[in-house]
Amino acid sequence: MTSASRYTYLGPEGTFTEAALRTLPEAATRELVPMVSVPAALDAVRGGEAAAALVPIENSVEGGVTATLDELATGKPLMIYREVLLPIAFALLVRPGTALTDIKTVTGHPVAQPQVRNWLAAQLPHAVWESSASNADGARLVREGRYDAAFAGEFAAATYGLQPLVTDIHDARNAETRFVLAGRPARPAARTGADRTSLVVWLGDDHPGALLELLQEFAVRGVNLMRIESRPTGEGMGRYCFSVDCEGHIADRRVGEALMGLKRTCPKVRFLGSYPRAGDGPDGRTGDGVGPLLRPGTTDADFVAAADWLARCQDGRA
Amino acid sequence: MTSASRYTYLGPEGTFTEAALRTLPEAATRELVPMVSVPAALDAVRGGEAAAALVPIENSVEGGVTATLDELATGKPLMIYREVLLPIAFALLVRPGTALTDIKTVTGHPVAQPQVRNWLAAQLPHAVWESSASNADGARLVREGRYDAAFAGEFAAATYGLQPLVTDIHDARNAETRFVLAGRPARPAARTGADRTSLVVWLGDDHPGALLELLQEFAVRGVNLMRIESRPTGEGMGRYCFSVDCEGHIADRRVGEALMGLKRTCPKVRFLGSYPRAGDGPDGRTGDGVGPLLRPGTTDADFVAAADWLARCQDGRA
Amino acid sequence: MTSASRYTYLGPEGTFTEAALRTLPEAATRELVPMVSVPAALDAVRGGEAAAALVPIENSVEGGVTATLDELATGKPLMIYREVLLPIAFALLVRPGTALTDIKTVTGHPVAQPQVRNWLAAQLPHAVWESSASNADGARLVREGRYDAAFAGEFAAATYGLQPLVTDIHDARNAETRFVLAGRPARPAARTGADRTSLVVWLGDDHPGALLELLQEFAVRGVNLMRIESRPTGEGMGRYCFSVDCEGHIADRRVGEALMGLKRTCPKVRFLGSYPRAGDGPDGRTGDGVGPLLRPGTTDADFVAAADWLARCQDGRA
Amino acid sequence: MTSASRYTYLGPEGTFTEAALRTLPEAATRELVPMVSVPAALDAVRGGEAAAALVPIENSVEGGVTATLDELATGKPLMIYREVLLPIAFALLVRPGTALTDIKTVTGHPVAQPQVRNWLAAQLPHAVWESSASNADGARLVREGRYDAAFAGEFAAATYGLQPLVTDIHDARNAETRFVLAGRPARPAARTGADRTSLVVWLGDDHPGALLELLQEFAVRGVNLMRIESRPTGEGMGRYCFSVDCEGHIADRRVGEALMGLKRTCPKVRFLGSYPRAGDGPDGRTGDGVGPLLRPGTTDADFVAAADWLARCQDGRA
Repeated sequence: MTSASRYTYLGPEGTFTEAALRTLPEAATRELVPMVSVPAALDAVRGGEAAAALVPIENSVEGGVTATLDELATGKPLMIYREVLLPIAFALLVRPGTALTDIKTVTGHPVAQPQVRNWLAAQLPHAVWESSASNADGARLVREGRYDAAFAGEFAAATYGLQPLVTDIHDARNAETRFVLAGRPARPAARTGADRTSLVVWLGDDHPGALLELLQEFAVRGVNLMRIESRPTGEGMGRYCFSVDCEGHIADRRVGEALMGLKRTCPKVRFLGSYPRAGDGPDGRTGDGVGPLLRPGTTDADFVAAADWLARCQDGRA
Repeated sequence: MTSASRYTYLGPEGTFTEAALRTLPEAATRELVPMVSVPAALDAVRGGEAAAALVPIENSVEGGVTATLDELATGKPLMIYREVLLPIAFALLVRPGTALTDIKTVTGHPVAQPQVRNWLAAQLPHAVWESSASNADGARLVREGRYDAAFAGEFAAATYGLQPLVTDIHDARNAETRFVLAGRPARPAARTGADRTSLVVWLGDDHPGALLELLQEFAVRGVNLMRIESRPTGEGMGRYCFSVDCEGHIADRRVGEALMGLKRTCPKVRFLGSYPRAGDGPDGRTGDGVGPLLRPGTTDADFVAAADWLARCQDGRA
Repeated sequence: MTSASRYTYLGPEGTFTEAALRTLPEAATRELVPMVSVPAALDAVRGGEAAAALVPIENSVEGGVTATLDELATGKPLMIYREVLLPIAFALLVRPGTALTDIKTVTGHPVAQPQVRNWLAAQLPHAVWESSASNADGARLVREGRYDAAFAGEFAAATYGLQPLVTDIHDARNAETRFVLAGRPARPAARTGADRTSLVVWLGDDHPGALLELLQEFAVRGVNLMRIESRPTGEGMGRYCFSVDCEGHIADRRVGEALMGLKRTCPKVRFLGSYPRAGDGPDGRTGDGVGPLLRPGTTDADFVAAADWLARCQDGRA
Repeated sequence: MTSASRYTYLGPEGTFTEAALRTLPEAATRELVPMVSVPAALDAVRGGEAAAALVPIENSVEGGVTATLDELATGKPLMIYREVLLPIAFALLVRPGTALTDIKTVTGHPVAQPQVRNWLAAQLPHAVWESSASNADGARLVREGRYDAAFAGEFAAATYGLQPLVTDIHDARNAETRFVLAGRPARPAARTGADRTSLVVWLGDDHPGALLELLQEFAVRGVNLMRIESRPTGEGMGRYCFSVDCEGHIADRRVGEALMGLKRTCPKVRFLGSYPRAGDGPDGRTGDGVGPLLRPGTTDADFVAAADWLARCQDGRA
């Protein structure tokens, strides 16, 4: 296979990221390559060894995945073309024959720990937790005998020759993770009417009202924010940029005008793509098909009518 | 002369409006026709009997001239192509031979009265004031013997065979009146870089934050307001439209985008023209040549650069 | 009678102002004194010769009564304690025996003219209009034979020995005038739950966003504006103060906090009173009893609860 | 020693957190107890076993420490009384006798990795990185021979019997971490004039402009934001609360009014304390003593004067 048919993802095999990737129809015809880290998965795309990378960007319990946010904000530009929502429930994987009462040590990715903490306190109060590099890596360490049990996706059991002793473990209801498929810059995904647009905005240093003005660029065009996350710029404490998702597509006039407003008034803006919104429900369905409820006066037709009117005014025909 | 070379103005002869009109270079080659009222002056333009009409729109002491504001806001559309600022100082006009001590009755336009009230109280405390239809009409009534003295522009003395007994009377320092030259809709006046744009905006009925949103359409594009005046819509108490002047020209991108924003989100907008700003000083000079101090990110070049960037984003070349 | 029982009003007798004044229950036990002008009516109160003055402040067709707005904004402070809404319909008053076809000249206050213009054009297209100092004064001049007919309130007919030839004339539907009863500063009228608060706010000279900030002081506390009117400060073209009415009473916490916000951030604020709202309907009823629909979090109870919470936070008991 | 003199911190011994804790003068007279995690350190305070806990809250390179943000936002309330800024520079710790060329494996906390990535790529391009549970834990594993070198604070060398082979390693200039000292709710730290106030605000679910309104509660009172961080509420994707720091102290009127505004209009607000600002410079000094530049009209004196004026208005003495 060529690099054009290769997709990388945050590995190892058996992670939730792989499970998310396999929900994409085209995954069946792609070479799926696990990578050791988010930067590694994305760098393979930047370097041309892969066509795209699937990486987690946000978890409904743990929040933004900073490695992904920061990788997309800096370095050689990448763009997002798809998102996948995956409900997160853990299975407790053990070597065949292990009973709940046999378990003295458990492992899993540090991010998994707070999502199973209550379950663990109730069911295995005396088990000692040690973190592993990934949920799948934890499964491997269980197979090797280092730990008695690992929290991981149920789908990882087969890969590592383990058994799911308990399934559907999750402290929070509706826990889910959002993954994005990132590629090299090209035309954005086609507009569907139920889209999401991602960007990173840097604010001027010494301007206390700058964040308010950023939000007003969206608000005055009736564009709703879906997510805003501050990230340090690396230039010292108190210096932030903002990772922002808004409803709508760059091809929507209201979104385009808001983006241009940011571009004009902020020191730096990085466009990260417009792509179909995955469903917001707990079933992780992609393509909920429900567009935003637009404020009056903000449809494309309204923008076109206003531009026509402006042209008529300028010609003395209004 | 044909109607194309005819300018009407708020008469009669000898008013400040005529004096303002004569400051326009082209006045020398036009037929200047006094009309009995602002509506009459403007209706002559609407009806094609005149090319343009000069009418007062705002006085620095008395405020907006509501007849003009309302005529421009309703009825067959008109547009403003020029403005003239005229310092306002009154002369006390009397029949030859009249002394200050002879004066028992004085007259003048009702608008003149508050501008000379203090002077009158100090110099002619016992004189009885009666309003006349215009300052010039007051002069006529003095000539006819109905009153002893009239407040009017010094320039009206000759027209009515009177003498200026006292000149340069004005309670307020820097009193001046702004006049506008209105014509039928056509291309706006050329952009000079120091322009003013006038419009009338109707707000939705039942929306408490609507005025705030109107102002934000300007603010978010860095367009400064110069004047805002509420006027009743005639649909009952509490229903208003807003007569607004902002800095800049409809051909300025920031102004154009703000106007389109209003057009999209307000029930009705009437564009009244973009035209060179007359000086704000007390000398009534036209064309102060000083453009607004633009907020960073709001020049035409900034708008063009942002549009280029948006296009590149849409093409995957950002 | 003493000055304490004397009310002045904008005269002469037979004006709409007198009719409005007579709708107040206490008018029956007061000496009602017509004055020649709004300033005269208010100065009598300032000087202690009268307890209060009723003057028009706003007409639903003609807009704000600038003489009243400016008198309340400047000079010795006055406060508003009541408002009266009066529907405005004109009668055509003639000397007994006059027929419509006899009428060659008509008169009335300049403010009446635009309100009957259409009727006049349709019914008496050839009649010549001349303005008089007041509608009642026009009636007097008809009785004296100077004009054939006067537009005035039907109630003025008896006073001037005239007959109402046509009644209920008004071009605009729902035309009404709002009058205010002004007295010397004292405690505001009691809160009714359906109140109006009036103030005048001066903005800093050179601050383009100042009007937006003024509105935000109201908006952030959920206080709706009912009226905003710019008035020149008299310091030169382009310098304005704002006459503002908002819903609510100074004793309402949200209103009080908004007023303090303005006081802190604007160069000058003049409080003109809180008083019961008269009905907005065409029947001129006072006391519609309908308070504003409050935004969540802006009732007095919400303010008290928040203050309690703040105190607990400061004490470490939150 | 009693629990009143016991401070917990994010352990183990030799972490940057311990180094930060030792910058506090009172640390000399307290029992300092390392804990295995941020939740454990804070729970000891909640449970009464310790008086306070020092935990990292924000790193100028890595951003907010989500474990700390989430622990402070939920569960039994805690409050912040102090902050400490510590410049972050790593030393490469090795067993005595190890040379740079001997190093095949390196370890450190996952958070350290991006802060030394460039250095590692340049100096030890072939060394394999494996994460450890903490920097200090990595040092321990080096002593035990599992890895060849660990990135940690230079101060950890002695604790673990290692040698600092290279010091002052940090990819980013001015890297520093902010730590907070959290205790059970009590009166906030005394106002110094250069303070910081922390809170967590939940927004209403379905209100697109809610974040804008949150910011306006601060802006309209002239309170500058210093940090804003969105965190998932755990109620599903797209539901966030905001961890916010603003300049000023709860005892400052402008801050108090902003907090009350949030309390009134947001579903939930948790006050996390007001405390002296540590310096923002790279030297990690505490108490920079520089208060915020206040917007005109927002000092306590301005608030008091406005409250006096309001009282006078309500008494008719304005």
